[in-house]
Amino acid sequence: MSLTLWPVTGLGEVSAGDDLVQLLLGRLDEPLRDGDVVVITSKIVSKALGLVSTADREAVIDAETVRVVARRGPTRIVRNPAGLTMAAAGVDASNTVPGTVLTLPRDPDGEALALWRRLRRRAGVEVGVVLSDTAGRAWRRGQTDIAIGSAGLKVVDSLSGTQDTYGNALHVTERAVADEIAGAAELVAGKTGRTPFVVVRGLPRHWVGDHWATARAGARTLLRPDDEDMFGLGARDAVEVALGDDDPTGFPGAAADAVARVRDLAAADPSLVDVEVADDGFRVTVLHDGADAMIEAGRVAERLRIAARAHQVDRPVEVRTTVASGR
Amino acid sequence: MSLTLWPVTGLGEVSAGDDLVQLLLGRLDEPLRDGDVVVITSKIVSKALGLVSTADREAVIDAETVRVVARRGPTRIVRNPAGLTMAAAGVDASNTVPGTVLTLPRDPDGEALALWRRLRRRAGVEVGVVLSDTAGRAWRRGQTDIAIGSAGLKVVDSLSGTQDTYGNALHVTERAVADEIAGAAELVAGKTGRTPFVVVRGLPRHWVGDHWATARAGARTLLRPDDEDMFGLGARDAVEVALGDDDPTGFPGAAADAVARVRDLAAADPSLVDVEVADDGFRVTVLHDGADAMIEAGRVAERLRIAARAHQVDRPVEVRTTVASGR
Repeated sequence: MSLTLWPVTGLGEVSAGDDLVQLLLGRLDEPLRDGDVVVITSKIVSKALGLVSTADREAVIDAETVRVVARRGPTRIVRNPAGLTMAAAGVDASNTVPGTVLTLPRDPDGEALALWRRLRRRAGVEVGVVLSDTAGRAWRRGQTDIAIGSAGLKVVDSLSGTQDTYGNALHVTERAVADEIAGAAELVAGKTGRTPFVVVRGLPRHWVGDHWATARAGARTLLRPDDEDMFGLGARDAVEVALGDDDPTGFPGAAADAVARVRDLAAADPSLVDVEVADDGFRVTVLHDGADAMIEAGRVAERLRIAARAHQVDRPVEVRTTVASGR
Repeated sequence: MSLTLWPVTGLGEVSAGDDLVQLLLGRLDEPLRDGDVVVITSKIVSKALGLVSTADREAVIDAETVRVVARRGPTRIVRNPAGLTMAAAGVDASNTVPGTVLTLPRDPDGEALALWRRLRRRAGVEVGVVLSDTAGRAWRRGQTDIAIGSAGLKVVDSLSGTQDTYGNALHVTERAVADEIAGAAELVAGKTGRTPFVVVRGLPRHWVGDHWATARAGARTLLRPDDEDMFGLGARDAVEVALGDDDPTGFPGAAADAVARVRDLAAADPSLVDVEVADDGFRVTVLHDGADAMIEAGRVAERLRIAARAHQVDRPVEVRTTVASGR
């Protein structure tokens, strides 16, 4: 009926090649039981895998970036090779030797599966494994721990097809229980990084075990597919991408930067039109009276209006046809 | 060292005007202690406040919508009056009498504060209160419970200014502990809605109490301010808003709908240009040879290109200047 979580303490430094299952079992105050879930920080898994780099942090983030989701000044929220959307691609410079950074496992479900297989065999009980990492959220401040890998565990508890106590069908509820477990574990893991294992006892027994579609599905089940994801780009980044920029800057930060960015996004052909930026607005001047220059002026003026709206630059756009035209 | 959570069970139906603190205290198996946190589902608070409506669900969602964040077919993710970003504005048709819906409290921190004051006084111990609700996330499938209100509790545990065990400064880490507590409570609350109270015991003692900036800050601390929020609009919605549409449709759903939507977003002046939609592309025809018609053609063609990119309609845009022009 109750849920209990406790940290496994007293571990020393973990290095590449260390046997995490042995370290865990050697430090348990009491044996694991059927139905327990062990939450393991991805940081300790990365250390045991030797995923440490002495390269420049920005270069490592570049290498871990599949695509930029949103950018604001120096902050990059990106999709990483494991499909996770995280600031700095999940590259971690805390609780690691100064001058080094850790990267996330490329296949966190695979690592969880390997750890789970050894843990089951060695402990002789039916347990689940969650690999956790810290992630920010849209709309809400602060970070929570989420499940980036898992094995032997139900990660989503789907309530579709069931009824509430009034007999209403529960259509759309899918509980991301693996994320809630990872977040709960963080509450007891402490903040300085020396408690990489948390035992969770008391979850519904049928969530844990080697059932079909639980042990195998993994935490990748929790990744929203691109075609269902309404937030695959930041709001301003999405406009920049729609304007044809493959390297969006999103939030430029300072207001002056936003004006310069809007000017750049106009992408005017200087042989056809001239673009001026003034405090009272943008001015597009047609350089000759051909249809191509007029059409370009309409195109550029509209790009300026759209970019200005996205970057909240409140300046009007004026088109000047100073040359003799067909009007 | 360990964290324990258990549900308070055996409650009957809750109606408007019911005293939730009395119901809770009457059902506790053991007394609350200093440092405990009680997680209360917002649903039960809404019921006790009488926030039930027999109006049409869509009309209720309209009334609870401050602005649309993202839209996809019938799904609306909106900002609600409490500042929360939620599907259907948090309006709830499950675990309520058929034909009725529940709305969220307009001031969940205020409700948490009122419950906390009465609970502290009645129980005679220093406890915290979290009001929880279920919310979806960007990028990740499934829902988790989050803290929409709180009192007497540290909601964000900021690690800035502290150091990790290597002496690295921990700059940016802010743990959204109230959200992790709400999510943990959901793991034991059960899914059919009859366990609206969960007791959490074993959190760091200094997180709970009537300190400055903890009791008072509330869960609104967790709302990301607009100027820091890179995901204040869905990706496609952001482009539509940048195109000047105040009522974005975001994801139109079907491919044919997307083409129609792109056509609408062109917003052409029919006295100046004609827009045709064909399988092989969009065609913008200039209707006379004045500068205004040429400029309009450039404007409309660019809007079609931008909208098509955002809605992933892979059709080129052609501009036809069939009338005698200056070229």
